Amino acid sequence: MYPKKTHWTSDITTDLHGREVTLAGWVWELRDLGKVKFIVLRDREGFVQLTLKVGKTPEHVFRVFSELNREDVIVVKGVVETSKIAKRGVEVFPTDITILNKAKPLPLDIWSETPDLATRLKWRSIDLKRPRNLAVFSLASKILREIRETLYGERFVEVFTPKIIVTSTEGGAELFPVLYFERVAYLSQSPQLYKEQLTASLERVFEIGPAFRAEKHNTDYHLNEFISVDAEAAFMNYHDVMDILEKIMKRVVLVLSENVARLREVGLMPVVTELDKIPRVEYDEAIEKLGQLGYSVKWGDDFTVEMQKALMRFYGSVYFIIDFPASLRPFYTKRKENDRSESYDLIINGIEVASGATRIHKRDELEEEMRKRGLDPKLFESHLAVFDYGMPPHAGFGLGFNRLLTALLGLDNVRHATLYPRDRYRVEP
Amino acid sequence: MYPKKTHWTSDITTDLHGREVTLAGWVWELRDLGKVKFIVLRDREGFVQLTLKVGKTPEHVFRVFSELNREDVIVVKGVVETSKIAKRGVEVFPTDITILNKAKPLPLDIWSETPDLATRLKWRSIDLKRPRNLAVFSLASKILREIRETLYGERFVEVFTPKIIVTSTEGGAELFPVLYFERVAYLSQSPQLYKEQLTASLERVFEIGPAFRAEKHNTDYHLNEFISVDAEAAFMNYHDVMDILEKIMKRVVLVLSENVARLREVGLMPVVTELDKIPRVEYDEAIEKLGQLGYSVKWGDDFTVEMQKALMRFYGSVYFIIDFPASLRPFYTKRKENDRSESYDLIINGIEVASGATRIHKRDELEEEMRKRGLDPKLFESHLAVFDYGMPPHAGFGLGFNRLLTALLGLDNVRHATLYPRDRYRVEP
Repeated sequence: MYPKKTHWTSDITTDLHGREVTLAGWVWELRDLGKVKFIVLRDREGFVQLTLKVGKTPEHVFRVFSELNREDVIVVKGVVETSKIAKRGVEVFPTDITILNKAKPLPLDIWSETPDLATRLKWRSIDLKRPRNLAVFSLASKILREIRETLYGERFVEVFTPKIIVTSTEGGAELFPVLYFERVAYLSQSPQLYKEQLTASLERVFEIGPAFRAEKHNTDYHLNEFISVDAEAAFMNYHDVMDILEKIMKRVVLVLSENVARLREVGLMPVVTELDKIPRVEYDEAIEKLGQLGYSVKWGDDFTVEMQKALMRFYGSVYFIIDFPASLRPFYTKRKENDRSESYDLIINGIEVASGATRIHKRDELEEEMRKRGLDPKLFESHLAVFDYGMPPHAGFGLGFNRLLTALLGLDNVRHATLYPRDRYRVEP
Repeated sequence: MYPKKTHWTSDITTDLHGREVTLAGWVWELRDLGKVKFIVLRDREGFVQLTLKVGKTPEHVFRVFSELNREDVIVVKGVVETSKIAKRGVEVFPTDITILNKAKPLPLDIWSETPDLATRLKWRSIDLKRPRNLAVFSLASKILREIRETLYGERFVEVFTPKIIVTSTEGGAELFPVLYFERVAYLSQSPQLYKEQLTASLERVFEIGPAFRAEKHNTDYHLNEFISVDAEAAFMNYHDVMDILEKIMKRVVLVLSENVARLREVGLMPVVTELDKIPRVEYDEAIEKLGQLGYSVKWGDDFTVEMQKALMRFYGSVYFIIDFPASLRPFYTKRKENDRSESYDLIINGIEVASGATRIHKRDELEEEMRKRGLDPKLFESHLAVFDYGMPPHAGFGLGFNRLLTALLGLDNVRHATLYPRDRYRVEP
């Protein structure tokens, strides 16, 4: 048995001067200056310098040093000392090093170069050792925690709805077929209909899980499998759920601001580090502003990323667009006067990150909206039936988690915010 | 606009005597005693009695009462009063009631009878209004929160790995094929290989999400789509991860004990309400004990639910079985002396709820174990390659969330612990 890791690299501060610690991680860098030798050790949380000095460091540690290669897995016992030279003012003098596993020379550079995306994704599990990736995906986990804690605080319960389904949620979107024993089923594109149905029992529900879209286009902002944060609440309207999204975003931005130092170290700068009220911009006003800026866009059009970026000069990097034309939204969206709808998008750094609405809770209205969109209500009978037995008014949102991370960190491709992306041409690793 | 819900039924206590509240929910029961009329209002958290009294209650509220049916959706303004007669010592005198949606007579009884499982699952979204279901799935959410919080406390990060994959995790299990554009892919049966690979970068990871098994048998404890809680940690062995599972279970049992009153109201009694140390019973000892009890079981056999229930008389309702014969475990399980392995199952109320092990972290050992099981290492090349570049020793577990809930509540079928179950013959609703 090897000794247990007692500290992470980020725990090693000057406060620990003189203390014995056990670290475990990977050899990031080796430097041999003769009588002094250095190992930079990496773990998920960062780096620490191990210093070997002739006369101070035991002989057997030097022997281990001579066998080391980059990315070898080691466990190190040593004593923390403050240092005037070492990064972060602290170093560790090892008293024992054990090699737990050897590493061959890596198939891609994770130290100084950033290879092209295709190479990085091909060797994704190795690429994830890159400090920037460690920072991004550690942050992702913290953001998820804030999202859930906000929703728990608003008395939502977490649910899981099936991913193998028999009918389309929206009617339109393309689905991946699954061979389910003797029949064909499909992968769920969204928990939309299930979460709406659940408002009739659990009232406030959320789900964070995979969603699947068989869309053939291959863009920087689309994935064929992505993580969707879905929430739906009885007795709320679209402004109520925007209030909740606002609360979520405030907590998320707080986490971002707390992590600015680490993000900066890996060359990232969050797009937002402060957030007060998120403006709720009417669709009509957005159209007008875009007209002023010379965009040829008319009422009834959807916005492009470029237009959404252009609107930032008026509303900042985080804003809602509300009251979209009903014709632009799915059948379950509640209509308001003048062909508008009680709907909204959340735009961050020009990217549509979430979208939501008050939903229709009356069966006859729902059927009418289906027909307007050329959908046959008969195909949705099992969903519609639930509306006969006490469906409350409700509202909700769907938020693309990978996009949220992409937008917040100003990444240029959603694949950077996804551990193992799935797209038109990529289904492994 | 209707007024906003200010309180849940469970918030209505004698402390609120004299306060005006707004409640929203469903008509559970109507009683008309002439000059006094009662509405029992249900929401997710429970019930509250609304009392209408001639002379006290406004006329228009009586008119609304006369239109009400069970399961109609209403919002109620009223004043809380302590009561000697009403359940929980409190009632609400409504000053205004708005009907938000009407309900037809339900297609199944949610009040007094418990229809057969098939009927209940057919009308699942209606069946979920049943108080027992509201209690079970509210509890499920609380348990999920405890699981995550324990893992965050142990410095795990939450990850999402792809559900659309190209190769089998275990080699053996049956997979659902997916038509992924021009090729055939599969639904993931477990994040096993991904989570192991991630220990080489993020060190401690967990994922809670769907897993898919195309197994044809249809039992009370199997689903074809279920929620898997997966954790994996670098620099840990199987005892370390059992320690973490033990911490999780202690927090989960604490939540159970806090919810005993509500569970009892709906006829449920948790199997465990106190938990100290979880015994770690060696496989060999379990075999011996079962022999003493007259079971014909020999070294190398797996245990049945019946045997696991029998062992409860020695070890209580929660125990680990450890050190299984290597041949009973998957190829990635670390071997120990005498053909045993560093593996374990967590058994609750006789049901195998989780299973884990120290994993092999050396490529050559992994290949050897594959070959022993008739698996071709070439088919796992992209997985094996990761082991060349600094794979740390690691250990983990997979826990079936629906089974955990089933076992803890002593339910007789895992479908009771699943919102919309998927099995051999059921893919909707």
